[in-house]
Parts: sequence; C-alpha cells; structure tokens
Amino acid sequence: MSTAGNTQQTEGPRSKRAVIIATAIDRFGEAGFEHTKWAAIAEDVGIGQTALYHYFESKAHCLLTIMRLELSDSVERFSAATEPAPDSTRALSAAVASAYEASPRDALQRRILHNHMDLLATPRHSKKEEEERILCCALVHEIEHNWTGLVQKGMDDGVFRVTDALLTARMLLALVGGAWRWYRPGGEITLDEITEVTAEAAGRLVDSDDVGAS
Amino acid sequence: MSTAGNTQQTEGPRSKRAVIIATAIDRFGEAGFEHTKWAAIAEDVGIGQTALYHYFESKAHCLLTIMRLELSDSVERFSAATEPAPDSTRALSAAVASAYEASPRDALQRRILHNHMDLLATPRHSKKEEEERILCCALVHEIEHNWTGLVQKGMDDGVFRVTDALLTARMLLALVGGAWRWYRPGGEITLDEITEVTAEAAGRLVDSDDVGAS
Repeated sequence: MSTAGNTQQTEGPRSKRAVIIATAIDRFGEAGFEHTKWAAIAEDVGIGQTALYHYFESKAHCLLTIMRLELSDSVERFSAATEPAPDSTRALSAAVASAYEASPRDALQRRILHNHMDLLATPRHSKKEEEERILCCALVHEIEHNWTGLVQKGMDDGVFRVTDALLTARMLLALVGGAWRWYRPGGEITLDEITEVTAEAAGRLVDSDDVGAS
Repeated sequence: MSTAGNTQQTEGPRSKRAVIIATAIDRFGEAGFEHTKWAAIAEDVGIGQTALYHYFESKAHCLLTIMRLELSDSVERFSAATEPAPDSTRALSAAVASAYEASPRDALQRRILHNHMDLLATPRHSKKEEEERILCCALVHEIEHNWTGLVQKGMDDGVFRVTDALLTARMLLALVGGAWRWYRPGGEITLDEITEVTAEAAGRLVDSDDVGAS
C-alpha cells in the first residue's frame, strides 16, 4: 500500500515499476537479496530483462530504491502519528505504533531495509545506485533527527528524565527496528503484541512516568 | 585478541588463518563486504589466491567464519561477565558491559556481524559455508537463550518487573547491538560512554529499581 503510493508518483499508468518493486520485496524478503536472481523478478513480472533494465539498472539499484521508499514512508508515518499527539509521552507511543503499522509486505520491506543498512555506508560505483544511496542517507539522518526532537521535547517538558537526546533516540530506533530481525507474519507474536510491549519499553527507556499511555 | 584466541585452536604455528581473518575484518569492516575483493585479502596477507582457498573456499565462507567466531566470543564474554555477578541487576549491567569490551578490530568484527545477520536466514549452497551458517544460528539461539535466562531470573527474584522474558531479552539484544551500526573507533562517543548509557537504559527496560548498578 505505502509502496504503491510512493512509486507511482512519477510514473505513467502503464508503468510496471510498482509491480517490479512489490515482486522484488517478496523475493528479497523471502529468499534474501543475495539468493534472488534478477532474472527471476523479470520472469515473475512477465517482462523481459531488457524491459526490467528500463526501470532498474541492477538488483542493487532496485534494493536501494526499496530502502529509500521505506525510509521515506517512515518519515511520513512518524509525522502523521506524532503531530496530533497532545504530549510527549503519547507522541512516543504513537511513534512506536506507527513503526509497526504494516501489511505483511510492508513487514518484509522493513526487514529488507534493516538487513541492508550497511549498504549505505560506502559509495556506489553506479550513478543511479549512488543517487538512491545518498537519498537513503539523508532520510536516515532525518529519521534520527525527528526522534531526537521528540526525545528533546519530552526532556524540555520535564517528562522524559534522560540526559542525552541523540543517544536515547538511537536506542529507541534500535529497540523499535530490532523486531524486524525476528518478526514473521503469521508467527507466534503479532504486530499488535510487539507494538504494546515496545511502546511500554520505549516509555521506560526515556524514563517517563506515564508509561504506555496511548 | 579474541579472534586470534579462537582461530588458532585447531591450527599449527605456521597457519595464516588468524592473519587472514584479521585482514578480512579490517577490509570488510572498512570498505564493506560487497566492496572488498577477495584477491585484495590474499595480497594484503602476502599469499597467493590458491593458498587463500586452502583456508576459505569463498569470501562468504570467510565472512560466516568471522561471524561465528564473534558469536562464540559473545557467548563466552556473557558467561564470564554474568556468572560472578551477585544479583540480577548487576548481572545485567555486566552483560551489557561485556558486549562493549572491544578493541577497534573487535568493534569492526561486531559491526560486520550485525550488518550481515540476514545471511543466516537462508541455507548456503556451499557445504563449508552452510556448516558455518548452522553454527552461527545455534550460537544466535544460545545468546538469546542466555539473555532470556538472565531476564527470567530477575523476574523470578522480583527485581525485574517485566512479564515476557523472551521479548525483553530480544529488546535488550537490539538495544545493545544497535550501537554497532553507528559507533566508530575514535568518534565522538566512546565505548565507555555507550556502556554507561546502555547499561542504565537496560536497567530501565527491565523495569529494575536498582538501575545502572555495577
């Protein structure tokens, strides 16, 4: 859902970009990026490899695009969730909840993102890949900045009794993102359960009295 | 230090295995696994590619071995740190501290491990790679089991006021491991600072009264 919204902005009605991305998310998420053959995606979508290269010049270009779309969605979800919140404690709960609003494909997309963050550390040789990587880095920075702002506001309001907004934000992001390593749609633990437990833990992490309010 | 100890157990005095691993850690950690040419490691070590293949049949085999050694060290560090601790709160602080006892090369090795955990999700085609992957999976399970046991003991003692030992352990592991994403030796924040902030946060996460004791 979120992916389609983001990808079709600059594409015509006959574009196969959204379906390629959705297919790649399924393949990378299930078999792993390394084990997925680029040709298999063309086959799944029902296009030739030449047509596929019209959209993405490499498997890594497609992966970086998937990561950038997810990061961009994450920024939007955070704003939509936290802006209406009446106070910092509820903003934090809402931010955590927004991270776990996910269809099964969104969950795969977030796992792919978290599993390949190391790709962002080193420049790409290809220009298109490098463009996506730079966008990703800027979005990662924006996400960290936004969460730091949320923590700082709670500190300023005297509600969060921590002393380092940036380090606390990084710990919250690690806490929230960590679940994508082990969460599986249809598994023993649901996203609702993860949301509840993580929101409460996030409240304790910022040393807020009013833990888990939503 | 930890790597050499682990790698030389089954190797003769003339073995180049430890130096290959140390070189690979430096290369994978700095330039990234994908960007590192396998031939460059042979060159750094001063051996031919044929000699290199005597030790590791592929770059991925070397990576998985580095990951397995780090996971194995992690299990040992956890036991050494937590066994002498007089109570659950101090065991938790000691466990966190043990995770950040690291030389600059250890820090690289842990970043490599955390950045490539997704490799463990899917079977390897090569027998040697698959052997290392299965060992890694067992160690990951053991680490999760050990941290869950620590949390459960604190719950049983009435010191940790959380309700789900496994989910809490996973959150603690995400919290502790998250720092390897952004920590850089010589950067603004030292491992001692990370240890202090994370140990305190871990104490709050398990809802322990006696936070940060050590």
